[in-house]
Amino acid sequence: MAGRNHLFIPGPTNTPHEVLSAMHVPMEDHRSPIFPNLFKPLLEDLKKVFRTEAGQCFVFPATGTAGWEVALTNCLNPGDKVLIYRFGQFAHLWMDAARKLGFDVEAHEVEWGKGIPLDAMEARLKEDKNHEIKAVLATHNETSTGVTSDIAGVRKAMDAAGHPALLFVDGVSSIASLEFRMDDWGVDGAISGSQKGFMLPAGAAILAFSQKALAAVETSTFPRSFFSLKDQMNANKDGYTPYTPSTPMLHGLRKALDLLLEEGMDNVYARHHRLGEGVRRAVAAWGLQICAQPGFESDTVTAIVVPADKDARHVISTAYNKYNISLGAGLTEVAGKVFRIGHIGDMNDVSLLGAIAGVEMAMLDNGFDIKPGSGVAAAIEYYRSTAK
Amino acid sequence: MAGRNHLFIPGPTNTPHEVLSAMHVPMEDHRSPIFPNLFKPLLEDLKKVFRTEAGQCFVFPATGTAGWEVALTNCLNPGDKVLIYRFGQFAHLWMDAARKLGFDVEAHEVEWGKGIPLDAMEARLKEDKNHEIKAVLATHNETSTGVTSDIAGVRKAMDAAGHPALLFVDGVSSIASLEFRMDDWGVDGAISGSQKGFMLPAGAAILAFSQKALAAVETSTFPRSFFSLKDQMNANKDGYTPYTPSTPMLHGLRKALDLLLEEGMDNVYARHHRLGEGVRRAVAAWGLQICAQPGFESDTVTAIVVPADKDARHVISTAYNKYNISLGAGLTEVAGKVFRIGHIGDMNDVSLLGAIAGVEMAMLDNGFDIKPGSGVAAAIEYYRSTAK
Amino acid sequence: MAGRNHLFIPGPTNTPHEVLSAMHVPMEDHRSPIFPNLFKPLLEDLKKVFRTEAGQCFVFPATGTAGWEVALTNCLNPGDKVLIYRFGQFAHLWMDAARKLGFDVEAHEVEWGKGIPLDAMEARLKEDKNHEIKAVLATHNETSTGVTSDIAGVRKAMDAAGHPALLFVDGVSSIASLEFRMDDWGVDGAISGSQKGFMLPAGAAILAFSQKALAAVETSTFPRSFFSLKDQMNANKDGYTPYTPSTPMLHGLRKALDLLLEEGMDNVYARHHRLGEGVRRAVAAWGLQICAQPGFESDTVTAIVVPADKDARHVISTAYNKYNISLGAGLTEVAGKVFRIGHIGDMNDVSLLGAIAGVEMAMLDNGFDIKPGSGVAAAIEYYRSTAK
Amino acid sequence: MAGRNHLFIPGPTNTPHEVLSAMHVPMEDHRSPIFPNLFKPLLEDLKKVFRTEAGQCFVFPATGTAGWEVALTNCLNPGDKVLIYRFGQFAHLWMDAARKLGFDVEAHEVEWGKGIPLDAMEARLKEDKNHEIKAVLATHNETSTGVTSDIAGVRKAMDAAGHPALLFVDGVSSIASLEFRMDDWGVDGAISGSQKGFMLPAGAAILAFSQKALAAVETSTFPRSFFSLKDQMNANKDGYTPYTPSTPMLHGLRKALDLLLEEGMDNVYARHHRLGEGVRRAVAAWGLQICAQPGFESDTVTAIVVPADKDARHVISTAYNKYNISLGAGLTEVAGKVFRIGHIGDMNDVSLLGAIAGVEMAMLDNGFDIKPGSGVAAAIEYYRSTAK
Repeated sequence: MAGRNHLFIPGPTNTPHEVLSAMHVPMEDHRSPIFPNLFKPLLEDLKKVFRTEAGQCFVFPATGTAGWEVALTNCLNPGDKVLIYRFGQFAHLWMDAARKLGFDVEAHEVEWGKGIPLDAMEARLKEDKNHEIKAVLATHNETSTGVTSDIAGVRKAMDAAGHPALLFVDGVSSIASLEFRMDDWGVDGAISGSQKGFMLPAGAAILAFSQKALAAVETSTFPRSFFSLKDQMNANKDGYTPYTPSTPMLHGLRKALDLLLEEGMDNVYARHHRLGEGVRRAVAAWGLQICAQPGFESDTVTAIVVPADKDARHVISTAYNKYNISLGAGLTEVAGKVFRIGHIGDMNDVSLLGAIAGVEMAMLDNGFDIKPGSGVAAAIEYYRSTAK
Repeated sequence: MAGRNHLFIPGPTNTPHEVLSAMHVPMEDHRSPIFPNLFKPLLEDLKKVFRTEAGQCFVFPATGTAGWEVALTNCLNPGDKVLIYRFGQFAHLWMDAARKLGFDVEAHEVEWGKGIPLDAMEARLKEDKNHEIKAVLATHNETSTGVTSDIAGVRKAMDAAGHPALLFVDGVSSIASLEFRMDDWGVDGAISGSQKGFMLPAGAAILAFSQKALAAVETSTFPRSFFSLKDQMNANKDGYTPYTPSTPMLHGLRKALDLLLEEGMDNVYARHHRLGEGVRRAVAAWGLQICAQPGFESDTVTAIVVPADKDARHVISTAYNKYNISLGAGLTEVAGKVFRIGHIGDMNDVSLLGAIAGVEMAMLDNGFDIKPGSGVAAAIEYYRSTAK
Repeated sequence: MAGRNHLFIPGPTNTPHEVLSAMHVPMEDHRSPIFPNLFKPLLEDLKKVFRTEAGQCFVFPATGTAGWEVALTNCLNPGDKVLIYRFGQFAHLWMDAARKLGFDVEAHEVEWGKGIPLDAMEARLKEDKNHEIKAVLATHNETSTGVTSDIAGVRKAMDAAGHPALLFVDGVSSIASLEFRMDDWGVDGAISGSQKGFMLPAGAAILAFSQKALAAVETSTFPRSFFSLKDQMNANKDGYTPYTPSTPMLHGLRKALDLLLEEGMDNVYARHHRLGEGVRRAVAAWGLQICAQPGFESDTVTAIVVPADKDARHVISTAYNKYNISLGAGLTEVAGKVFRIGHIGDMNDVSLLGAIAGVEMAMLDNGFDIKPGSGVAAAIEYYRSTAK
Repeated sequence: MAGRNHLFIPGPTNTPHEVLSAMHVPMEDHRSPIFPNLFKPLLEDLKKVFRTEAGQCFVFPATGTAGWEVALTNCLNPGDKVLIYRFGQFAHLWMDAARKLGFDVEAHEVEWGKGIPLDAMEARLKEDKNHEIKAVLATHNETSTGVTSDIAGVRKAMDAAGHPALLFVDGVSSIASLEFRMDDWGVDGAISGSQKGFMLPAGAAILAFSQKALAAVETSTFPRSFFSLKDQMNANKDGYTPYTPSTPMLHGLRKALDLLLEEGMDNVYARHHRLGEGVRRAVAAWGLQICAQPGFESDTVTAIVVPADKDARHVISTAYNKYNISLGAGLTEVAGKVFRIGHIGDMNDVSLLGAIAGVEMAMLDNGFDIKPGSGVAAAIEYYRSTAK
């Protein structure tokens, strides 16, 4: 099939050619005297993306999913109680991981389309007078529903309750794309992965921990080895790693950080907002709804609800097979009900307009009652009026 | 500027990632015993793209512009008369090259927007009773105006006139994308370059000559060295080259030929027709004209005429600076009057819809009276109804 | 510094350019309908490298170190007793990992330079009448000392003792380079990583488990999530993964497997034997000893013992700084006493002769009493006489 | 065949991975407003390699062979007399090119192994009272024999004769590796190619012309088009090219220039001298002769004369087929009599020691009476004692 695949899943995202070329390097000795010249500045510059000065950054040769486990197994003790609000598939999977690891998971169901209910959380934390809850697990951007939770609000709720639990945040599909302020928001463990806002292939769990979280590592008795933060800290302080890193990935991360920091994190956030808003204008012009309820709209991924008589899987299948567009499917509870357009990472207006046009074709092919060009027209007007 | 550049100039075209990777190779000995295993099949498979069995293909480490010179200096004698119809900038440049090389160029002006006037040519050839015209130089696809000439018709005109001149065809922006049939059309010298339908970087003149043309080489006294077809033939027959070739380019050409032949040349032509027709539908929906007159529309590039009160350069500049789309400028006589969308090479519907949407934005930004989304809507309807 | 770095550490190994290019691909949807076309054959073809038909292969986005943990945490229960012989740094680290994970580790010290003592092991297993030992952890190729253990012999010892323990083998620096026969040797868990014989960057734990090991997974109560074999099996059976894989790594693995299987595994083993033997001839010609005692010589890495008055670190430092050769350092107990030449992966005679010559220079610079060219001469004679 | 090919031909040379990655870029618009930001500094920085401030540099999308033609056809008039000393195959080919182009070539035979005979040249120029000789064609580094001519001496001879001829120098295998000083030596046309000292693939003729040469362009009547310096100058002055350039090649050249200028040209010359001298020490240790006579030894390529009863082709064939080393063959008059080791471009001690060892193997396999390791030992001693 001639022409490129158009990748609009919410991750892996499109990798800039500069990043791919930076990864195309011969292998090298990760114990060489010059390896720290690569690795140490990476760990420092990551702080600028996580917006932390007090915290410490880590790169594990694994994925964001592993990052969940790193936070839980290093900072908590076996069987500790954790609080989680389940408002999408990735919140569900984190909950599931915590359960598999033997933690006492208190999970509250939240309607998919909403984020963490701040008032309810505050009330629950206030109730927990004995501070049995050791950690709050908060999904910042729920990729499955296109919902962004208010993490600053979560911190406020915890503070209002005077609760000392650790705050762990799944920022896999938010960090390096959506506004994320680790220090300001009092995040204790921030978890991301390489294949989203960092615009790299999957294969790195990119994490940051607060000093409070790192202090908890000292007393944690949870059995762990590969995911040991202490082993990382011991090796990282000299600029090395406890086991073989993927040096191509680190070179790619170097270039990705250069691109992000050159653009400026605030500009990165603003760009993602523009991109997301354009998609939402298109959806509105089609007369469709998005899964996210007002106030929860994600700027990195939009889940579009199809009419009750339609199956979103057909849209995805047509888009892929007929037009070579990769869209995100609805997962588990929203399977068939939504399809998702990822607008995260290395992306710009024209790419997204192509996607919107392609989605229109796929919807029309499946009998959707939309006006051809209507979504594109709405997005065009928005992008034009907001472009610099 | 985040996100990719959207390249819609009529060449260099977008290079598929498989081709770029195929070119990312260590250097190698072009005199090794295995080099012919790479090079000989390339020369053979090129015939399938030129649609010739009787002819012979050549690859020079130069560009399509050099290809013009190869044909002229190898098959003609100093001062020979050549006939050319000047209906665009590339016809102009070929005429100019022939003049610089001292040939007796008989050039006829043709309105830009039309192609070679077959009746006039036939009449002229009939007039030339003494066969002073030694070669007809025919631009197949005039990139500057988006005009495709009828080369089969040129052959018919020559045959009708019983004229023995050689037929040289500039197929730089047609071969490997538009229908081209060297043997059927009696083409004696077919000239292409790597950076158009072959989807490679610039740097190879890709040529085919008929046996009649090669016979003419034997008697030609034109001074030549680097561009000597005889030197190529002597080396090529054993699978080598007379001087150092770019081996990465040859590996890229191998992959590009694999992609083209896997798709099938007839499918390649049909794809370009669909792509081009979609663009034309969009232009019509905008209420604008294209430079090519009916019957001359090119399926690899469309030159769009802006209203008299507009400057096409502003559209191009806005598209580039604000939306990161590269469009083709109007050249010389049509500078400011047209902008061009290339739809040649590794391209598909969604890429082009992005371009069309982007062009709409750039036109609207420049005060064009068009309806947002109208071009996209027209193209969507066409692409949907014709996609397989 | 002009010229390439010469990489002769025992991993990461040199990645063939074909593999690097295969990894230079746009990101793609790992949930697409065509993803299984890539992934399923990979899992099947890996069996040919592990030499197993009954077993099942797995690829985790992590490293070989993680592979140790996968075997332990999936097939054993918390606190289970495991038997390990500590004869080098990587055996030590595996022991250490098992202890961190809370297993009851019975570790026996073995002189560094030897491998697993088969008789002692057999005796120990016979003693264990109640079968308290649930797993034997055997390091096949001890990278730190250049020692290869006899895994077929381990199996014989276990069988002679009639012991039902699982046999887990660290084949990180042996599988895909040294002879390894999972089924024949009754290996239950075989652990490798991408950055050694597989000639890829670090970032994949490549594993195989026997049906006996997989049955044990069913009853294991060890808490695990990211490393769950069951989650992998559930997803793998349809050709997918439980979380985002590194698709570039999988494309690279595809190419690496193609190269290995095209060469033929028996030829791969033979090549490594030749390469290793040449290095040993050079060492003998220098009048030096290798760390491995007779019968334990590794064909993937040679640890060379420096005279008592020398510090191997100086050789390594000179080689790196003055000649751009990366050698392996002596680790922990042999730090300063040995330096290591890796001869694993994409390697041939001339590369190694360059390394041997470079090592001669570094030794001479550090006052070693060796004859210039002597090691190279010995290796030359061996390679010449054994080359095909 | 596992392991890398060892490329020791005198060009194409080994391309550094940074350069290959720099070339792995999407295509781009060579008429964009930012293209001059790439191209103009390239033309300026090239002057630092040619060591010219007064001259002007050019890049043609062709090869060094084409560079010969550019000089001849732009600065001379049809039939002009040129003086050339034929002391190797590349001098021969330049002579041949000049003849094919119709120039009046006065060629003097020089024993292969020597360079330009300065006294004889001076005498000849003095004889030419009427200044019928319009240009001296001087091969700086004769790749076929491993001979370097004294270009400063050529200038002195011309000055001593008070002769106004243009001095054209073939620096294809010298510029960017051997000392070359365009302004100091009064070179009027300096011709190089991308695939030697510039460490790029073939595909660019890289040239510099003096103001005197450029003035001659104004009056030259030679027919030319693709190779027109005037067309280049007209386009280059604004940072553009007269026809489509290979943008990947330009990006590669950018990186190559960065590497060269970072190393420093004087260091580049010194490095090549060390590399060459080591090879010569090895040859002497083997008891063999090099083709170059004393004072003419090239630091970029060494042609080694085999004993009368041997055929150098067998050495080359064994080296390639058995050991995957690519050596340079003897060309035409020295075919079978010499084989060549290129030591030009991105190269260091250890690479060359591998080549020397490999050549020893190939010679021993062919019954040469040399002592294994002897050449390596001699080179080792030299490299050790001269390394920084």
